[in-house]
Order: sequence, then structure tokens, then C-alpha cells
Amino acid sequence: MKESRNRKPRVVIVGAGFGGLQAAKKLARKNVLITVIDRTNYHLFQPLLYQVATAALSPADIAAPVRSVLSKSKNVEVILAEVQSVTVEAKKVRTADLEFDYDYLILATGARHSYFGHNDWERLAPGLKSLEDAIELRRRILMAFEYAEKTNDEAARKAAMTFVIIGGGPTGVEMAGAIAEISRYTLAKDFRHIDPSRARVILIEGESRLLSAFPEDLSRSAQKQLTDLGVDVRTGVRATNLNEDGVQLGDEFIPCRVKIWAAGNNASFVGKTLGVPIDRVGRIVVNDDLTIASHPEVQVIGDLANFSYQTGEPLPGVSPVAIQQGRHAARNILAMIKGRKPQRFHYWDKGSLATIGRNKAVADLKFMHLSGLPAWVAWLFVHIFFLIGFRNRLLVLFQWAWAYLTFDKGARLITRNFQSEQRPPA
Amino acid sequence: MKESRNRKPRVVIVGAGFGGLQAAKKLARKNVLITVIDRTNYHLFQPLLYQVATAALSPADIAAPVRSVLSKSKNVEVILAEVQSVTVEAKKVRTADLEFDYDYLILATGARHSYFGHNDWERLAPGLKSLEDAIELRRRILMAFEYAEKTNDEAARKAAMTFVIIGGGPTGVEMAGAIAEISRYTLAKDFRHIDPSRARVILIEGESRLLSAFPEDLSRSAQKQLTDLGVDVRTGVRATNLNEDGVQLGDEFIPCRVKIWAAGNNASFVGKTLGVPIDRVGRIVVNDDLTIASHPEVQVIGDLANFSYQTGEPLPGVSPVAIQQGRHAARNILAMIKGRKPQRFHYWDKGSLATIGRNKAVADLKFMHLSGLPAWVAWLFVHIFFLIGFRNRLLVLFQWAWAYLTFDKGARLITRNFQSEQRPPA
Repeated sequence: MKESRNRKPRVVIVGAGFGGLQAAKKLARKNVLITVIDRTNYHLFQPLLYQVATAALSPADIAAPVRSVLSKSKNVEVILAEVQSVTVEAKKVRTADLEFDYDYLILATGARHSYFGHNDWERLAPGLKSLEDAIELRRRILMAFEYAEKTNDEAARKAAMTFVIIGGGPTGVEMAGAIAEISRYTLAKDFRHIDPSRARVILIEGESRLLSAFPEDLSRSAQKQLTDLGVDVRTGVRATNLNEDGVQLGDEFIPCRVKIWAAGNNASFVGKTLGVPIDRVGRIVVNDDLTIASHPEVQVIGDLANFSYQTGEPLPGVSPVAIQQGRHAARNILAMIKGRKPQRFHYWDKGSLATIGRNKAVADLKFMHLSGLPAWVAWLFVHIFFLIGFRNRLLVLFQWAWAYLTFDKGARLITRNFQSEQRPPA
Repeated sequence: MKESRNRKPRVVIVGAGFGGLQAAKKLARKNVLITVIDRTNYHLFQPLLYQVATAALSPADIAAPVRSVLSKSKNVEVILAEVQSVTVEAKKVRTADLEFDYDYLILATGARHSYFGHNDWERLAPGLKSLEDAIELRRRILMAFEYAEKTNDEAARKAAMTFVIIGGGPTGVEMAGAIAEISRYTLAKDFRHIDPSRARVILIEGESRLLSAFPEDLSRSAQKQLTDLGVDVRTGVRATNLNEDGVQLGDEFIPCRVKIWAAGNNASFVGKTLGVPIDRVGRIVVNDDLTIASHPEVQVIGDLANFSYQTGEPLPGVSPVAIQQGRHAARNILAMIKGRKPQRFHYWDKGSLATIGRNKAVADLKFMHLSGLPAWVAWLFVHIFFLIGFRNRLLVLFQWAWAYLTFDKGARLITRNFQSEQRPPA
């Protein structure tokens, strides 16, 4: 594209997660041209993804089309494409078949799971980052009960009714609690040959306690609440091997059909194409103003950024960090356009929440710690409040109210790949 | 299984569509043991499938887990498996790894699309029978607009914004109307480089009029209502060839990216394994009591049955026929158990409805014909009323009310196979 003296600055935002979307909203209707590039056509409300995986919500309940969220911002164009590389010297972003020039770039491509070098484990134990992941996990969980109902092999039945979740952070805790609940309540009366409420749910954490980012008293409370639900919590234990038949924990082998990975993240590969320092999980080490070395026009936010100026540790990969960084990056761009310098970012930590099940959760509100019902109510309000779009909020509230009253979960559909599950490889 | 004089009669029902499910409900809590076998874990409300394909509803809104629908009927077991054959002499039903003995059998495995010998067309122009079909069509329709937004090739853009629907029965009419509506209202403001409201929607029907099962005045009205929506309706025209680039209609080639098949059905292959007479589309020719020749213990219902005693023509493949036949088959079994003969089936035709869009539909209520708003209101009530499960009804009603007021459609998610779409085959 030709340069012209009075043309509007071009801002490219890669990734329409919490950080990227927030930056786009903040820059909308300012005197800039914005291109938002994402490899999906929707913004995903990731904190509720585990509810899609456990059949409480439908994909569309927690996802809003990026176009529709930004439809009124006429200075924003949305491109459905996967970015393959960034050339900071030439100020170019490349997708498979297109190239975009920018004056300012915000990189917010997030993270995927990390299998610590065992990439073959991904197939055996899927993680939970995308809608496709959630649909696949839902399928595996429901298919395990279907298989248990049909088989006459007692050992196979037991393995099908054993669910191992690897990783005791918020996602692992949520998944363990949710699987325990659907087996004990939702599915309890639907089968004739098995008793779903006798399903084993095993949660494995390598550290000495669950939710290591939370205060110790809340970790203990979460463990107790999970144990009350019947979850077998094992801390200080690591999965040393996985195969089709189960999980190896040191000397013990646990036969199980469904294995779920919630243990680690790796930042998106896009970071590696920049040629700037990255940390051991692939995050870009940013300056204290979110820019990268020698390129103040490039800012990196959210799970892709390693920002360690505040606590000495990198900020955690949670949505409030991404949202605040998205807003800050937008402000920085507006400042730079006016010839001012980008400002130092400061994260305002309002606390953390993790939910376990009906009336069960933990909340670290900084000024106080909550457990059980009060924490769960706090979780409910925060998540409904921040859910994108008025329509989704009402829909989700309705489905939660329904599930709360009836213990029923509506989205128990097994779709995709059913045929391949039916006919085991010869 | 061993015979015993006082054991309960075993009823196997294959297929949990409208017919099979109705039969199971009617036999629930009677003195029989029932096995319902379906290859999916849900009952699908097929009349609303086009709304999933056009992003108005989520899969879970129109599907209910078979187990959960039948959960209170303790004499019913549900098996998730695909039946591969039936041996009427031995009274056995076979799946990939299991075998079921029956005293009475109800076959209700339905139909799939028929491509009139051109099986390679299925990949080019998917039909709309399953949730997977609907998700795939939704993906193709939404991806076409995304592609049109990105490309610089004017001819490719035009082809991406041309949608050809082959077959002018109720499904074709619904799809044509719904695609015209989302392009003209829902998507209209979401793009920057294309105007979705200029999308071409072409509906092709080989016969001289649309909706040939309806009275002529309603066919004319449907055509006018579609034309008002901007649909290009072509009757008396057949697709003579399809390829990636478009559709051949005799001498004319229409370049188009998305092609949708709504032209013909073939009954499920299970019928062919029985060794009884089938018609040219694979339907089993049943006796006037729904049983098959020499085997009164076997009944065939719904889209799999050719029942021609009432009008001289086979009854149409619509849900009221399947529902009434399901109930009748259940009654026949209860009669036969008591040593009585199965009774002749009589279809009570309450009329037909086809919807076109907001305030647009046709209804043949036998005693009167309706068009436009009154037909649409009738359609709305009938479909909400018959939707399985109280929860789904409320959810769907809410989403329709929302869509009606805002023209917004909530389920605009492109999932699955996105990667393969991104990178065209080399």
C-alpha cells in the first residue's frame, strides 16, 4: 500500500481473545484503521469452556462472532485467517495468502497446551483451549459411559468409568468437579447396566497442593470440597507415562479410558517468528510498557506475554490480565500517535475465583477468602457479568438456573467422529 | 438367551427418530422389555435442522439425549450402536459387536439423501439430515462470506456469494429463505469489503412448481414469498452436473461455492438386509398393518416404510406419519401379545406446513389454506409445541423471540475442519 502523509495510522491486532478484543474496542471510532485477525470467527469466553466439555452449555452460549461484536465500529475490519509470521523490520504480518502492513501491532495470540515434550500425549489426553477441544472432550466423556453400558468385560467397564484429570489448576479442578457432578446427578438414572454415580474421578497434581496460585487455606478448602463430591485428589504425584489403556503414576498404573490434560501451557508459535527473547514456555519477554525491544510499535499482551516487572514472576495467564493489557496497549498506541511515549503497565489484581460445582467454589478477593456457597455465588455473578453480549448472558443464566433446579444438563450430544469410535481399529 | 414360559416379551426398536421414540414411549411401563438402538445418542427434531444450518439455533436446542427422554421408563434400555443387519428367520438384530434377540421388532431407521447415482456429488453438495450435516452446511455458508471478504478476485467473490439449493421441497424452500434472510439482515452490517445483502440465492426445482406435495395455490404463494425475499426461483430445471466451481443447469453454468442438496431421499440400508420387497428408493413395502410379509412380529415405520394403502401413493416422509405409525406399531405389539391380530394403519393427515422466513410461510390445514403471517404463526406454534422437552421449548422460544426482535442470529460459529479450508489443496 502506498504511503501518504495524512493517512490514518494502521493498527493490526492479531488474536480476538480477551486482550485483542479489548484493544480493538478501545481503539474503535478513534482516528485509526484497525485490522483484527483471528483464526476463528468467534471470541471465546474461555472461563466457561469446561461447561461445554461437560455438557452444561452449547458452544454458541460462550462464543460470539467477532464481526458481530465489532460490527458498529466502522474503522475495524475483521479477517478470518491464521497468522504465520511477523516481520518487525518490514512491519508486516503474514497469513497463508495475505499480507498486512501495520504502523502499530498488538500481538495477542495466546497459548496452547504443553505436553512437556511428549507431543504424542495430546491425542491420548486432550486439553481444553478451543471449542473443538471442548466438543471432543464431551464426546469422549459421554462415549465412555455408553461403552461401559454395552460391554460385558468387567475390567473394560471399570476403565471406562475412570476419569483421570492431569493438572490441579483451575481448569483441572473445574473439570474434576463437573465430571463428578454429571456422573452423580445428571446421568445417574439414565443407564440400566451401570451406575454412573460410581464413576471414579481422579485429579492429579504434581505440586504439593491444588490451585497453587491461590492462598493455602483455599487450596485446602478446594481439596476438601472436591473430596466431598467423591473426587480422588492426589497431590505431589506426576503422570510418568500415558497410553490408550491408562495413566502411569510412578509405580501405580491406573487403567482409564478418558484422560484429560490440564497441566501446562505453551505460548503461541507466532512469538518465535519475531526474533526477540522468549522464555522457556515461548512467551515474549516484554518491556514494562508491553512493547518489545527496539520496536515500540509492537506490543504483546495476554498469555503470549511474559510481564515480570510487578511481582518478579510473570503475570498469570488469566483473562483480567489480558483485558487490562489490551486496554493499556490501545492507550499506548493513542499516546504514541500523539508523539508521546508508551506508559508502564500496572496490573490491578482483583483476586481469583475457581469453581468446583453446585454451591462449591473458592474465591480469593484479596481482602477476604471465600469458600463454598458464597464463593460460588461470587463466581456466578462475575462470569455472567463478563460474558460477552446480552443475549448470551440471558441464555446462560437460564440454562444454569435450569440445571440448578433439575440437575439436568441439556447439551449431552455426542457429535463428530462417532463412526470411528464405533469401529475400533482392527 | 434361554426361552422361558413366563418371561416378558422382548421388543427391539431400531432408530430413535419420531417413529421409534413414539413407539418406545407407548410401550414404556407395559409388561415388555424394550431395547432402543440408535447410532446417535440423541433424538433429533429434524424439522428445525435448517435453523442449525443457518445459525439461528444450536445443536443442543433441537436434540435431546435418548436416554434422558426415556430415563423414567425402567423397562427400556438404550444402546448407542449402528445396526448392520436383521435376520428375520432367527429374530436377531446385529450391530458391529453385539447381537440382540427379539420377539417383536420395530424398524425405524429412516432415510438419507439420494444423489440419483451421483454419489460423488455428496461431498460437493451436502444435504441436511443429521446434526453433522447442519454444522457442515453452517460452516460452508459462513466461510463463503469470510472468503468473499478477503479475496481480491472479483469472479471468485461473486461465486462465493452465490448459493444454489437443489430441490424445491420443504427443506429447499426453508434453506433458501433462511440464507436470503441472514445475508440481507443478520450479516448485512458485519463486513467491510462486501455487501452480504447482495448475495444471490438460487433455488432449483425439477418439477414445474415448488412444494409439489402442497396445493397449487400454496406453491405459487411460496414462490412469490421467496421472490420477495430476493431468492431466484427456477422451476422445471435440473442440475445436470456439479463440480467444485459451480452447478450446470442444462446449457447454463452457475459459478457458486456453496451448493446444498435437498432433492431426494434413499431409505436406510437396513431395509435391504431383510430379504423382503423394497421399492426403488429402498423403502420396505409393508402390509396394511405395518408388518412385513410372513413376519407379523416385524413392523416397519416412518421414512423406511412404503405404505400405499390409503391414497395409492406411499405416505410422505414427514414426522406426523412416523409418529402415528410408531404409536400404531406399539398398539399392534400389545395386541399380538394378547393373541389378537395387528390392525390396519390409518394416517390422519392434519395438513402440512412449510416456512420461508420471518412472517413468511404456507400452511395447508386441509379445511383452509394459509399464507404469510398467519401460516408463519401456525408454523411457530406447531413447532414449539412438538419440540421435545420443556427446557428446549423455552430455549428455542427465547432465541426465536430474540432473533425476531433484533434480526440477530446467535449461533454463527464456524467449527471443525477450519484448517483444511484455510489451506487449499496444493
